[in-house]
Amino acid sequence: MRKIHNKEDIVQVGLDIVLSRGFNATGVEAILKQANIPKGSFYNFFSSKEEFGLAIIDRYVAERGKLFFSIFSDESLPLLERIKKSFETLIESFEGNDCFKGCLLGNLSLEMSDLSENVRQRLEQALQIWAGELSKLLLQAQKEKALPSDMDTEMLAENLVSSFQGALLRSKVKKSPQPLRDFIHLYFDVFLARGEET
Amino acid sequence: MRKIHNKEDIVQVGLDIVLSRGFNATGVEAILKQANIPKGSFYNFFSSKEEFGLAIIDRYVAERGKLFFSIFSDESLPLLERIKKSFETLIESFEGNDCFKGCLLGNLSLEMSDLSENVRQRLEQALQIWAGELSKLLLQAQKEKALPSDMDTEMLAENLVSSFQGALLRSKVKKSPQPLRDFIHLYFDVFLARGEET
Repeated sequence: MRKIHNKEDIVQVGLDIVLSRGFNATGVEAILKQANIPKGSFYNFFSSKEEFGLAIIDRYVAERGKLFFSIFSDESLPLLERIKKSFETLIESFEGNDCFKGCLLGNLSLEMSDLSENVRQRLEQALQIWAGELSKLLLQAQKEKALPSDMDTEMLAENLVSSFQGALLRSKVKKSPQPLRDFIHLYFDVFLARGEET
Repeated sequence: MRKIHNKEDIVQVGLDIVLSRGFNATGVEAILKQANIPKGSFYNFFSSKEEFGLAIIDRYVAERGKLFFSIFSDESLPLLERIKKSFETLIESFEGNDCFKGCLLGNLSLEMSDLSENVRQRLEQALQIWAGELSKLLLQAQKEKALPSDMDTEMLAENLVSSFQGALLRSKVKKSPQPLRDFIHLYFDVFLARGEET
């Protein structure tokens, strides 16, 4: 097993284990064993397991932010298509994991929101930023008449993130991407497909 | 603290603790302490913590089934209003817990689907039954022209359950029922409000 030398490496190894097993089922010892480092090292880098939790959220958000930025700024695609593509990219990644793991933000939302106020606040911030990015695209799409003029685009952005998380939850239980594909179809081909006509 | 004498009582006490803290963060000892019973009793009733997990899911589904039955069979309400009311009843209960706890099925879906195949199957069954009940009402609503004739009512039923779980996840992080209220508004006043006209 390779040697791990710094905090960022522990975060990367730990992120993958927490995505697979959840936060409370992951002991610090399991992370250290996987990373092949002595026990003391963990507490050299993190004052607590909670602080480690915040670090893996930050890492996850940074990685996802890069992915989204390239999709959201792709001017070769219509605005709603960019949003659709961002979700489809996450779905492909989930399918690549045989419908295991899912989204760290969603998983920790249900597991940790009631147990750690610091983790809850970090998740809240991450989910708000995500919806904020979608909201900008939706508002622009509305100006271009791709959405009804009376649609509340901020509410819709929040709801898209929520409903995606719900479809991912359902797909994780079903061990099939079908609920996620149905989410894409219903939102982009049915619910939002009417544009200015309504 | 009151004495607890049988398996059903342990299930009831344990269900509440798991709703509050999650499955992996709940030790058998915490359940026994809360229930004020000696340690040996737990394994008189359950061969494993997993078996206890299945028992609390069954209890939760049975309680919710009773609640839903009375709403779904209320012929004084239009069909879509019954579905809306069933979600609103769950939202009121969540608000009554100050936006803590949430839905046992949703919480365990993300926490346990990758860790226990038996729990995953029990959750899959429960979520299918829930969507199945909604599907019957939606099909009837479609026959009465309250939904577009080209709407796939089975897909919509699954998606309603998923999107409700997603909105609940988001509300649990936000510690506000607003994402749940927005789910109700968007689905029942916007997405599905067009009836046969489309």
